[in-house]
Amino acid sequence: MSGTKLLDAIRAVVGARGLLTDPADTAAYTQDWRRLYQGRTPAVIRPADTAELAEVVRLCAAARAPLVPQGGNTSMVGGATPDADGSQLVLSMARLNRVRAIDPIDLTMTIEAGVTLKAAQVAAAEANCLLPLSISSEGSAQIGGVLATNAGGNNTVRYGNARDLVLGLEVVLPDGQVWNGLRRLRKDNTGYCLRQLFVGSEGTLGVITAAVLKLAPRPRETAVALCAVGSAEAALELFSRFQAHDPGAVQAFEFMSGIGVGFVLKHIEGAVLPLGQAGGPGRPGSAGQAGVQYVLVELATPRPDGGLRAMLEAVLEQALGDEIVMDAAIAESEAQRAAIWRLREEHSEAQKREGASVKNDVSVPVSKVPEFIRRATAACEALMPGIRAVPFGHLGDGNIHFNLEQPEGGDPAWFLAQDHSIMDTVNAVVRALDGSFSAEHGIGRLKPYMMPDWRGGAELGIMRQIKHALDPLGIMNPGKVLP
Amino acid sequence: MSGTKLLDAIRAVVGARGLLTDPADTAAYTQDWRRLYQGRTPAVIRPADTAELAEVVRLCAAARAPLVPQGGNTSMVGGATPDADGSQLVLSMARLNRVRAIDPIDLTMTIEAGVTLKAAQVAAAEANCLLPLSISSEGSAQIGGVLATNAGGNNTVRYGNARDLVLGLEVVLPDGQVWNGLRRLRKDNTGYCLRQLFVGSEGTLGVITAAVLKLAPRPRETAVALCAVGSAEAALELFSRFQAHDPGAVQAFEFMSGIGVGFVLKHIEGAVLPLGQAGGPGRPGSAGQAGVQYVLVELATPRPDGGLRAMLEAVLEQALGDEIVMDAAIAESEAQRAAIWRLREEHSEAQKREGASVKNDVSVPVSKVPEFIRRATAACEALMPGIRAVPFGHLGDGNIHFNLEQPEGGDPAWFLAQDHSIMDTVNAVVRALDGSFSAEHGIGRLKPYMMPDWRGGAELGIMRQIKHALDPLGIMNPGKVLP
Repeated sequence: MSGTKLLDAIRAVVGARGLLTDPADTAAYTQDWRRLYQGRTPAVIRPADTAELAEVVRLCAAARAPLVPQGGNTSMVGGATPDADGSQLVLSMARLNRVRAIDPIDLTMTIEAGVTLKAAQVAAAEANCLLPLSISSEGSAQIGGVLATNAGGNNTVRYGNARDLVLGLEVVLPDGQVWNGLRRLRKDNTGYCLRQLFVGSEGTLGVITAAVLKLAPRPRETAVALCAVGSAEAALELFSRFQAHDPGAVQAFEFMSGIGVGFVLKHIEGAVLPLGQAGGPGRPGSAGQAGVQYVLVELATPRPDGGLRAMLEAVLEQALGDEIVMDAAIAESEAQRAAIWRLREEHSEAQKREGASVKNDVSVPVSKVPEFIRRATAACEALMPGIRAVPFGHLGDGNIHFNLEQPEGGDPAWFLAQDHSIMDTVNAVVRALDGSFSAEHGIGRLKPYMMPDWRGGAELGIMRQIKHALDPLGIMNPGKVLP
Repeated sequence: MSGTKLLDAIRAVVGARGLLTDPADTAAYTQDWRRLYQGRTPAVIRPADTAELAEVVRLCAAARAPLVPQGGNTSMVGGATPDADGSQLVLSMARLNRVRAIDPIDLTMTIEAGVTLKAAQVAAAEANCLLPLSISSEGSAQIGGVLATNAGGNNTVRYGNARDLVLGLEVVLPDGQVWNGLRRLRKDNTGYCLRQLFVGSEGTLGVITAAVLKLAPRPRETAVALCAVGSAEAALELFSRFQAHDPGAVQAFEFMSGIGVGFVLKHIEGAVLPLGQAGGPGRPGSAGQAGVQYVLVELATPRPDGGLRAMLEAVLEQALGDEIVMDAAIAESEAQRAAIWRLREEHSEAQKREGASVKNDVSVPVSKVPEFIRRATAACEALMPGIRAVPFGHLGDGNIHFNLEQPEGGDPAWFLAQDHSIMDTVNAVVRALDGSFSAEHGIGRLKPYMMPDWRGGAELGIMRQIKHALDPLGIMNPGKVLP
């Protein structure tokens, strides 16, 4: 089938509204959010439901036309945009945007792939439940993409990754068959666990069209504290103490370096550090220097008598006494809570304003986070004098965003051109500590070249066998994940 | 290679101690625990480590000799024994029995497949951690089998199934390659999630030789109550209240019918019901009749100031006031706790003493448990007058062991001969409620014939594609899972 004939056949399925071919309309779908890649596409297909989407995939399979599923287009690794050769069709999930069902007794939600994560959270909250997944792009990111990439985020320490919230899936397979696996069972041992194969496969094995997600009871009480600690080791010790106390209450445990908090205070209007002299930026060994680091801990519980404030005070007082914590502030209001979270959330923006930076989304075993930060910082400083390590993120998951800020006064363009040698330097330490080169952002188009080295041998062999078995024509999101 | 030559080659790898060929030695490996199947085997191979095991699999692949991995041989569905034709070799995991590492900071344990679940629990406890998986066969069941079958058990409501505890795996593939995926990372998005494909595959895709499991902080406080309720609906309402209160503290929520508790009180020496007149067996509508049902709820927390007793009292007092609960007893001592658990744990033994019974390990969405019990009971009573439904088990997971006891005074052999019509009757209700015909016991040899009907079409197609891709010679546990 010629390209025109294929598009005509697709238009007959999805209607004129469901097919964008004007470059002005398709432009937004061809570039990734980070602007790392500029692709081209003959058309963006926007099916209205699973049946239409399945028919589109059948047509594309018959024509051997490659498809790139796209949700909110918020991939950090170019996972959802077509390549530059102009042959790949974009399959937009935006119109599959219905919340099919919420059951507060089962604590499940059945939801289509094109619903944004934010809209899903709101729908869950309206049913007095919590969809316990939160990422910074949640306003745009869609459920299908969140699952296809096994998104992580701030609450993984308590509720796991996206993968851990999936009870069932509906998937359109590469030949256009629909697998209806929308079961909402807590126990079901009937053959291979297919849902976990599609979760995290980045659209290379099929298209997730709907899912059953686990919900949690909505917390009635939340408590947030900002703590100044003298080292990453102390931050880890504090994490272990909270975990040992009540792991069911630790909803987020975020690490921030002194230098990173210093950038936020310097560049973000209205940002303040709610700590006194002991943890403040005014004294030696403080923000901007190696000495003081910060931890944001958020506790939450649905218990009406949760006692979170007392728990925070008890753990923190003991930690102050044991000199694990140098200073701490507990949020007394929603405004104070937001102000503490702002220090964490403005990290990326503050680094951008400070200059050029190179990002590493890596993980190591939780116990090795301090050693990782120490060794990776030293290795980068040895590579490039004046480079500034800005580690921050999900200490409770061993997932540190190890960003490197350019030397002060240096040339941003020159610095960014060193990105591969910087990433290699960080990754050498990650590898020595049995870590991962992609903790939560996935592989996409940015990192397939790293797969043979890190996941080679038997592991990559099995992945290729599975890809070939499910998508023998290789039409599903080609060029992503597998090299 | 002839059979003798193959065994000679295997003996050269594992040594004389690692190969059993005398029928007196192999007999215990050829029959399943429930004595549903009697198989035959030329030999039981007992490798000492992963390298030996991999070499054995390579030899068997070259000879196209089928292998049946066997752990503690506690399968409920004949999943770990060879068939009767005498061609299948048994691969015993018993000598891969080392705890390789425990890290209380990471809260992980790296452990070989042949360690019993009980031994793994003890090792975790010695490191002041909890391996939160508990099944009735844990004294014999081995980690490899527990993972290969995705075991469930009593604590699934809090910690999930075995699948949810797996961070990493080491697997010998059907061609003898070793996949070392023993990562202990909380976040790792680097390609397809292979570990979840092997978990629950019942040894048909490869042999799990070691795993990294998540641990939890050890609870400091536990509280157990037995509650009498007037209906399964009331039991579900009570579960929802505890869940809404603090899902992180609900460690078990077990349902028992009045008739089942009545059997325990009748047949098990020393069993007592720690409830007064309102919930006792002496009044109308009580144990043995439809009216009174029972719930065992266990709360646990590592919090030193857990307040579980107060939580139990608060929820139960309100439930008593709302007439959700008729009577309740909170264990005041370890002895009382054990006595309450005994009512649940002796269910199988008591049913056996009462007469013949047919077992159904099924699940439905949690919200549908009451409707399921009502409809399945009515359907079975319509099928066979005098039949006695004895539903019990994991209400919090929607996983009810729906056992049917023979009519009083009837012929046990005749009753057991009706097992398929009874199971079909129960399963018709399960299916109408979007449930599963195998909640936690798996498929094994007992249920592959049900797969086309329940998981047919696209789903079984993908499973077959994966099986063929990974095990093209079909040597791994043939005849199990897939029809």
